[in-house]
Amino acid sequence: MMTCVRVKVQTAAETSARTNMADQKKILCVGLVCLDIISVVEEYPEEDTDTRCVSQRWQRGGNASNSCTVLSLLGAPCAFMGSLAAGPVADFILEDFQKFGIDVSLVSEHAQCVSPSSVVISNIHTGSRTILHMNRDLPDVTAEDFSRIDLAQFKWIHWEGRNAGEQVKMIQQVEKFNAQLPDRQRIGISVEIEKTREPLYELFPCGDVVFVSKDVARHFGFDSPEAALKGLYPRVKKGAVLICAWAEKGADALGPDGLLLHSDAFPPETLVDTLGAGDTFNAGVLHTLSNGGSVQDALTFGCRIAGRKCGFHGYDGIREK
Amino acid sequence: MMTCVRVKVQTAAETSARTNMADQKKILCVGLVCLDIISVVEEYPEEDTDTRCVSQRWQRGGNASNSCTVLSLLGAPCAFMGSLAAGPVADFILEDFQKFGIDVSLVSEHAQCVSPSSVVISNIHTGSRTILHMNRDLPDVTAEDFSRIDLAQFKWIHWEGRNAGEQVKMIQQVEKFNAQLPDRQRIGISVEIEKTREPLYELFPCGDVVFVSKDVARHFGFDSPEAALKGLYPRVKKGAVLICAWAEKGADALGPDGLLLHSDAFPPETLVDTLGAGDTFNAGVLHTLSNGGSVQDALTFGCRIAGRKCGFHGYDGIREK
Repeated sequence: MMTCVRVKVQTAAETSARTNMADQKKILCVGLVCLDIISVVEEYPEEDTDTRCVSQRWQRGGNASNSCTVLSLLGAPCAFMGSLAAGPVADFILEDFQKFGIDVSLVSEHAQCVSPSSVVISNIHTGSRTILHMNRDLPDVTAEDFSRIDLAQFKWIHWEGRNAGEQVKMIQQVEKFNAQLPDRQRIGISVEIEKTREPLYELFPCGDVVFVSKDVARHFGFDSPEAALKGLYPRVKKGAVLICAWAEKGADALGPDGLLLHSDAFPPETLVDTLGAGDTFNAGVLHTLSNGGSVQDALTFGCRIAGRKCGFHGYDGIREK
Repeated sequence: MMTCVRVKVQTAAETSARTNMADQKKILCVGLVCLDIISVVEEYPEEDTDTRCVSQRWQRGGNASNSCTVLSLLGAPCAFMGSLAAGPVADFILEDFQKFGIDVSLVSEHAQCVSPSSVVISNIHTGSRTILHMNRDLPDVTAEDFSRIDLAQFKWIHWEGRNAGEQVKMIQQVEKFNAQLPDRQRIGISVEIEKTREPLYELFPCGDVVFVSKDVARHFGFDSPEAALKGLYPRVKKGAVLICAWAEKGADALGPDGLLLHSDAFPPETLVDTLGAGDTFNAGVLHTLSNGGSVQDALTFGCRIAGRKCGFHGYDGIREK
């Protein structure tokens, strides 16, 4: 339904100025989608006990998939690229993508694989989320898969760091595509380095914008976002912006001018659910930057919607002002 | 497939002696079926962390449903009576019941309800299982539902204590049915009081066999199975057997003769998965008693298969000697 509405808008826009055309281009997020089975509890369970949950729900999860959800709620046309198995879990996931009007034409189905679920225990009093991941047998999308897509439909492409070797090759394809275009028509490139896994660090020099997590920063021995940005900036490519969000401390960014930018966090009155707060922050930043906003605006907006998101379960509340 | 085989056996049995006919009568278990989403971990996760599981699986769960699984693996014809929602989770559950040849003709479907999942964290090193239940909106089966079934097909009926008020009325129906029959044709009646909920205690005077859990025993202030049986025996009806299993201490029973019976536990070499061990014990006891075995044999057999079950994941290994 939402997709239909968008197509209409796009047709109208064909007659408008070039900048409006660019607005209709999509943001593509490449990465993971999975099923999150979320149990909301009054307190974190002790081992070997039986606890009655406050509530339980199924939610489409995965960093890139969550960022798409938020982008869609912010009104940005977006697409998801990733792998999916077949079966009832995959059906649930596809249906949910469609509910949010997210383009899933680049999702590749693997009928033989299992769709595992992430189990999440969400503490309603502290907002803490404890996650049990599964080592999936689903192959990630490859540079070859990526080479078949029409890049002209995107204004920004974001990679959740996973199979970094292949992702580097995908980014090279985009850089080659960009090289033929004038600056303002180039596709923005961002990468997220969230997990403390050595191979992911080869993504540092790949993005115009690089998101590095608190976990990775700490893994490198940095105890604050400022220290992390200064310490890790030499790893990014010339002209890139390095961004580090740090939960209740807000987020910082460092660009080529050497100026450290900062936004405070905007915690909600009551912390309810921090699951996906990082993905929400990333979506807020991408939304701002891909619309030509400044890095400072992007930081502030990212912190603002990530904070708001922590005040309710899931993402639907983002739509309400 | 298994059902087909059983029907054949039953047809052949029609020409055999009356006792063989009785053997073909089913054991009915009334209670809960749900989906268990089981995450196997190397160690119990700390709050607000991300853990990679060793494995993850979906398993049909619920006490009465689990006891049916074990009875079926022991070769006993059995049926399950309980409520189920519609949708993919219900489909998974029904398919699994059928895989084990369990009669589901008494399952009532509630299309409007949600099938919630129990989340289970299973510690591979200690065998501990941490369960997150959900307060379901599914109505339990009622005495009216129960009044419509043909009791003549059953030799034993077991109730997992849930909606005790209704369950007491169901048991009264069976007692009325039994009153018309000679002793050896009567349907055996057992109840399980597992949860520490006051209304369930009205089931104490209802069964020929009453299973009371360690949790309930402790709730009444008893620190050993012996103390619990002596303390709680006055609550059961005249002639009944009260049984209390106590994990690694094995299980005890007390009957009308006042003799305390005991079986040690039979722990496996490596404790792998204790989920459903109690339901396995109950099934072993019911299997023995419904075949005319002694209480001592029932206790020992129950402990033996419950112990064996703790040595592997799920129940399939019970089939192998």
